[in-house]
Amino acid sequence: MRKMGRQTWYFENNVYINEAATVAGPMEKQGPLGETYDITYDDLHCHEDNWEKAERRILQQSIQTCIQKAKLQTDQIDILLSGDLLNQNVSSNYAARALSIPLLTMFGACSTSMETLATASALVDAGFANNAVAATSSHNASAERQFRYPTEYGSQKPASATTTITGAGAALVSKNPSNIGIECATIGKVMDYQMGDPFDMGTAMAPAAFDTIKTHLGDLGRTPNDYDLILSGDLSSVGSPILKDMLKEDGINVDEIHNDCGLMVYNSDQPVFAGGSGCACSAVVTYGHVLNEIRKGNLNKVFVVATGALLSPTMIQQKETIPCIAHGVVLKREELTS
Amino acid sequence: MRKMGRQTWYFENNVYINEAATVAGPMEKQGPLGETYDITYDDLHCHEDNWEKAERRILQQSIQTCIQKAKLQTDQIDILLSGDLLNQNVSSNYAARALSIPLLTMFGACSTSMETLATASALVDAGFANNAVAATSSHNASAERQFRYPTEYGSQKPASATTTITGAGAALVSKNPSNIGIECATIGKVMDYQMGDPFDMGTAMAPAAFDTIKTHLGDLGRTPNDYDLILSGDLSSVGSPILKDMLKEDGINVDEIHNDCGLMVYNSDQPVFAGGSGCACSAVVTYGHVLNEIRKGNLNKVFVVATGALLSPTMIQQKETIPCIAHGVVLKREELTS
Repeated sequence: MRKMGRQTWYFENNVYINEAATVAGPMEKQGPLGETYDITYDDLHCHEDNWEKAERRILQQSIQTCIQKAKLQTDQIDILLSGDLLNQNVSSNYAARALSIPLLTMFGACSTSMETLATASALVDAGFANNAVAATSSHNASAERQFRYPTEYGSQKPASATTTITGAGAALVSKNPSNIGIECATIGKVMDYQMGDPFDMGTAMAPAAFDTIKTHLGDLGRTPNDYDLILSGDLSSVGSPILKDMLKEDGINVDEIHNDCGLMVYNSDQPVFAGGSGCACSAVVTYGHVLNEIRKGNLNKVFVVATGALLSPTMIQQKETIPCIAHGVVLKREELTS
Repeated sequence: MRKMGRQTWYFENNVYINEAATVAGPMEKQGPLGETYDITYDDLHCHEDNWEKAERRILQQSIQTCIQKAKLQTDQIDILLSGDLLNQNVSSNYAARALSIPLLTMFGACSTSMETLATASALVDAGFANNAVAATSSHNASAERQFRYPTEYGSQKPASATTTITGAGAALVSKNPSNIGIECATIGKVMDYQMGDPFDMGTAMAPAAFDTIKTHLGDLGRTPNDYDLILSGDLSSVGSPILKDMLKEDGINVDEIHNDCGLMVYNSDQPVFAGGSGCACSAVVTYGHVLNEIRKGNLNKVFVVATGALLSPTMIQQKETIPCIAHGVVLKREELTS
């Protein structure tokens, strides 16, 4: 049975993450996971002359590095699933132009990491692709300019604001056994609790994470005890307690096993307001640190729930609230018998 | 074998379009296919107070009408795959908010119709969904404002420009037999022939259509003779001859069986410059007229190649050229034995 409940996909054919690669910017390099990234930059420009080119560069590097680590060539990749925060997903489209890999562009805001990983896993599981790459990126300056104000303006932010991380992550999915199995995925519904503040996306996104986690557990008849870690994408210090409270009211206690990528990516003394956010937030934490911990055997089963605020400046100007979505993928440690 | 060649997915389990629905605006209603649309509007506002709400309304209507025609409820739809031209795909995200169906948002510009249909077909074929809806929309005024100039400015255009159509289309995909089988799909690569003129997207997109058609025929060992119709999305009167010439130089003659949705959607005396374009262009022609002709037995096998110019105003300002992509799906007439 590949379909469990209404929203969960179960991968029957042993699908794995074979390799992954992460690229991160200067603030992220200084964070607690700085050592886990494959490539880092000390300057936000990343040797490019505008922010959009910088983001495209790191996305393309993450994809190419992932493919190289797997000892494959780009023409051995059957499909690339990629998305990012920029209008028209230009980072993904222009990176794919350089790589010449068949492309499905997806948009889930900061849920894109798990949206692309889930879809890549489904395509590989079913045999539509042998090697698929799921990728995403975000860049602090390109995102701030597009969604709020150019960083050069130096506008002030409230403490509930998050910091869009500069980074990119890519994962290679295939049926070749590795220590990292992809067990199942839960595709989210759009949730909107009538929040309209682009400087508080944690509060807006918490209900989407709640709905996906609750649905996931129900679809599979599981409890939080089945996981070592339930990892939300970028709820930050504002949204994480809301998620835990919402789950607790429903009888689901995740206090001991919940963490949030947006809280893991920076040190508490870094000037990041409520934490990290952006498409790359869940990608660089998952594809670096979390995979390492699974490989080492420190984690056995992790539910990564990437959270996306489908924020649009035009919609905010039109007095709309922010719809949100969360997509989750279960990664589990596999013992290799060789 | 679900994977044929590098880019083609073959659906093994008899996947069908059960129902489809189209909504169209005033110009489209006056066109030669006006009678084929389920719902039409005489005013571009579609009873809404801004263009974005108008587009969202028609997208949501196309999805709901499609589901109603299939005599299903929204909670029987396992997944919605949708995308549109607006930044952050807001038409799709906000329509899905109202419908509460699990959502995968995709972006392929005007190739989105076949990107979502191909992916929906793959998910149904493999058993990840029983009922999937693929949908897309575009609106002349919301697209012009975002990509070029607000229509209210009355700026002039060259004859190579296309007219973004106002419309939406949705198709329900399942394994329940119907007259419309979905045989296979070819996922495109990003192609860029260094065109940078947002008023001539036909020329920019022709190479992407060429690449997808050529690859498709090669992946399956077919020739144009295997099809009654090879239908490009929105190459217009400028891009269509370029596509045919490029194919001819490669020994592939489609002169007798090629048509373009952008040329079918308007009468020659309508003020539409080189023809129609936009995500909805291939959707309203395919999900209305083409399905009707297949049902009647006038068409037996159609390769719909939706063409997308991944145009970004920011990238044009940065002197980039326009990358393009084309995704194709084969629809074939199935005889129902009942």
